[in-house]
Amino acid sequence: MLEQLKQRVFDANMALPARGLVTFTWGNVSGIDRKTGLVVIKPSGVEYEVMTIDDMVVVNAQGEVLDGHFKPSSDTATHLELYAQFPELGGIVHTHSTYATSWAQASVPIPALGTTHADYFAGAIPCTRPLSREEVAGQYEMETGKVIAETLGETDPLHMPGILVSQHGPFCWGESPEQAVHNAVVLEVIAKMAWISGTLNRQMSPMDSYLLNKHFTRKHGPDAYYGQK
Amino acid sequence: MLEQLKQRVFDANMALPARGLVTFTWGNVSGIDRKTGLVVIKPSGVEYEVMTIDDMVVVNAQGEVLDGHFKPSSDTATHLELYAQFPELGGIVHTHSTYATSWAQASVPIPALGTTHADYFAGAIPCTRPLSREEVAGQYEMETGKVIAETLGETDPLHMPGILVSQHGPFCWGESPEQAVHNAVVLEVIAKMAWISGTLNRQMSPMDSYLLNKHFTRKHGPDAYYGQK
Amino acid sequence: MLEQLKQRVFDANMALPARGLVTFTWGNVSGIDRKTGLVVIKPSGVEYEVMTIDDMVVVNAQGEVLDGHFKPSSDTATHLELYAQFPELGGIVHTHSTYATSWAQASVPIPALGTTHADYFAGAIPCTRPLSREEVAGQYEMETGKVIAETLGETDPLHMPGILVSQHGPFCWGESPEQAVHNAVVLEVIAKMAWISGTLNRQMSPMDSYLLNKHFTRKHGPDAYYGQK
Amino acid sequence: MLEQLKQRVFDANMALPARGLVTFTWGNVSGIDRKTGLVVIKPSGVEYEVMTIDDMVVVNAQGEVLDGHFKPSSDTATHLELYAQFPELGGIVHTHSTYATSWAQASVPIPALGTTHADYFAGAIPCTRPLSREEVAGQYEMETGKVIAETLGETDPLHMPGILVSQHGPFCWGESPEQAVHNAVVLEVIAKMAWISGTLNRQMSPMDSYLLNKHFTRKHGPDAYYGQK
Repeated sequence: MLEQLKQRVFDANMALPARGLVTFTWGNVSGIDRKTGLVVIKPSGVEYEVMTIDDMVVVNAQGEVLDGHFKPSSDTATHLELYAQFPELGGIVHTHSTYATSWAQASVPIPALGTTHADYFAGAIPCTRPLSREEVAGQYEMETGKVIAETLGETDPLHMPGILVSQHGPFCWGESPEQAVHNAVVLEVIAKMAWISGTLNRQMSPMDSYLLNKHFTRKHGPDAYYGQK
Repeated sequence: MLEQLKQRVFDANMALPARGLVTFTWGNVSGIDRKTGLVVIKPSGVEYEVMTIDDMVVVNAQGEVLDGHFKPSSDTATHLELYAQFPELGGIVHTHSTYATSWAQASVPIPALGTTHADYFAGAIPCTRPLSREEVAGQYEMETGKVIAETLGETDPLHMPGILVSQHGPFCWGESPEQAVHNAVVLEVIAKMAWISGTLNRQMSPMDSYLLNKHFTRKHGPDAYYGQK
Repeated sequence: MLEQLKQRVFDANMALPARGLVTFTWGNVSGIDRKTGLVVIKPSGVEYEVMTIDDMVVVNAQGEVLDGHFKPSSDTATHLELYAQFPELGGIVHTHSTYATSWAQASVPIPALGTTHADYFAGAIPCTRPLSREEVAGQYEMETGKVIAETLGETDPLHMPGILVSQHGPFCWGESPEQAVHNAVVLEVIAKMAWISGTLNRQMSPMDSYLLNKHFTRKHGPDAYYGQK
Repeated sequence: MLEQLKQRVFDANMALPARGLVTFTWGNVSGIDRKTGLVVIKPSGVEYEVMTIDDMVVVNAQGEVLDGHFKPSSDTATHLELYAQFPELGGIVHTHSTYATSWAQASVPIPALGTTHADYFAGAIPCTRPLSREEVAGQYEMETGKVIAETLGETDPLHMPGILVSQHGPFCWGESPEQAVHNAVVLEVIAKMAWISGTLNRQMSPMDSYLLNKHFTRKHGPDAYYGQK
């Protein structure tokens, strides 16, 4: 029953090295079947070069493995927490992509500086607070999901389809695994450009909010007119 | 009748990903047939991997689609405004290429720092003012073309074959679609080098104007002696 | 008897250009057979494009060539000194990889800024003091090994599997040649990200030590739970 | 008679795009036959993708074309001036490679910061003064050669096999066209690393001179012991 989702999650995982977003095994994509609540996710530490569709792992909302011969990604609890918090999400991706991770290490949000950003993210991309000693000592991966939700607050997660976890790296999401990966690619490009822009003009202010709204709604929502829809 | 122009515009569009200037669908090239005033342009939001020559769209000066099964690029009105303002132009390209877009986000012109720049651009590459709230709320894409023309002013567009739109990204042009793409590649290289030069020497001044003129006229105009002409 | 080690050392050397860590011949990998104390290492100045497994050189702990038709790497004495000092090591790699070398040239340690770093290095990656005039005039390559050992001090070399040699470049190691190369790739990624993070936030402090310990022990030691073990 | 040199100069030119040193036609390599004084050089403005060995141009010391159906590189007079000034040279290369050109645009020498630099360049890589208005208005390309020679002064050109021309870009050389290209690759790597190092440590001082001398003489001169010679 989950064969189709397994194929899509596998393909989405394979897109990470193809897009230059991962070194070694530093990334994972999951997808959820909202009817059953089951989640398909990459196995932990398996190299992309040898991974096959049969290596995908199926877990339930409690993280119990229902199908698969491998342990799921060590970040599984983060994914599950996000799926529980945000029913809009169909896919989640975590990477250590170079530029987005550099911002996460610097613990600063990525300001909205131009239309490339505004086409996908409806404002500055937030960075979480650092996790506390207790959170790291406890259910660390689940707490990572909680601090992401805390940081997003009332924001529609599809209007802010990615975030930086302080001292760690980016998580992105979307209505599907494919969209989540798409947004992870965008985030990496935006992170690189915002870094360069910031060194070119240290007194730079964020983009005009009316331009940001124009570009976001040009691509998203009822009045979108970008593309063939 | 426009088959040849369609082929050239298609090839010029395909050169964008090959040259590393676009991510996903973030770029478009057009070409104009000055006898008929018809413009061939990329369809909106179609991925380069699957695009064929038959997907090109033909529009007239009013933006009406005369041929093609897709909607034209959402930036079509910007192209049309530039063709109307500058009869010298035969091709136009818009991208979100990383380095040029970073300068556009920083809202600063690219100073002329060396002969690579001077071989193509006869002075600093300008950055437009930000569009006003009214311009963005109105015919946004056409206003983008107008602010480009306003910024160029009396400058010969073939002496300044590219510009930065503030908070957005670069537009380039030339006597043909091929030249427009060529200039977009050059702009991206120049933007990268000017960024690096600026971090190496923060008190740097622009290049000597007599060296700039020498190099520009070595490649352009009646006294050019670069190449085989 | 050493055929298997030769093959592994050859493969590990060939991984350096494949991973983008070397220009021309600027890198070398060795492996040691702890039973016999013999070391297999890349020949000096031989280009990767033409190198074969038969070009590998076998030396003893005194650096005498026991097998091979080429001179061993000019850095052989550094490798031998490290093998003598640290019985845990099974493989060593030296490169002039761009980002790690840039930190070595700047003579500053790489601070631990995020979990990518913490997954492999249990603290800031140290940079040696400069070698003295006497050390450079004497047995230079052996002294390079000595200053690395001096800098590591009591640190477990498998908890700090790489170091920067001031004004020179990185050395990495591991329990095997493959692990040494793996760590060299990681060091290069970390070096790039730490550089970018530092330009994004000049008041940045190192990551929380409890997060660093969490991630290091998640992947290493008796309580590791990353991967399939 | 010059067929062998033509082949070598052609191959050396083709190495420029393969090594990522040129965009479009922005580079050229020449080689000299010291017995006859004839120079083989790339034709002006011909694209690498279509260039063949038969397109190489043979000129004499006065720049007169003795063989070839194309005009020689517009930089030919610079090459000829350098061959006249420095009898040690067998090959010369000019590029607009990104990082070296960025230093040339910033008009600052590249300090010697590490052993990668010292393995090839026996000190800081100088940057020429800007050419005067008169020099640019006169025999510009020949004056470029003269200012390079003026800047080198008494320095052995094989100990400093490259230089930055202010507001322009790098020229490199060697005993052969192949060595000249090799040095151009090295210069580009060094230029990138020195840029990064400088942003990591703004109070950085050049490397110790005894380490610089050690590495240069390890690879060059009678006491060299790097490689298989």
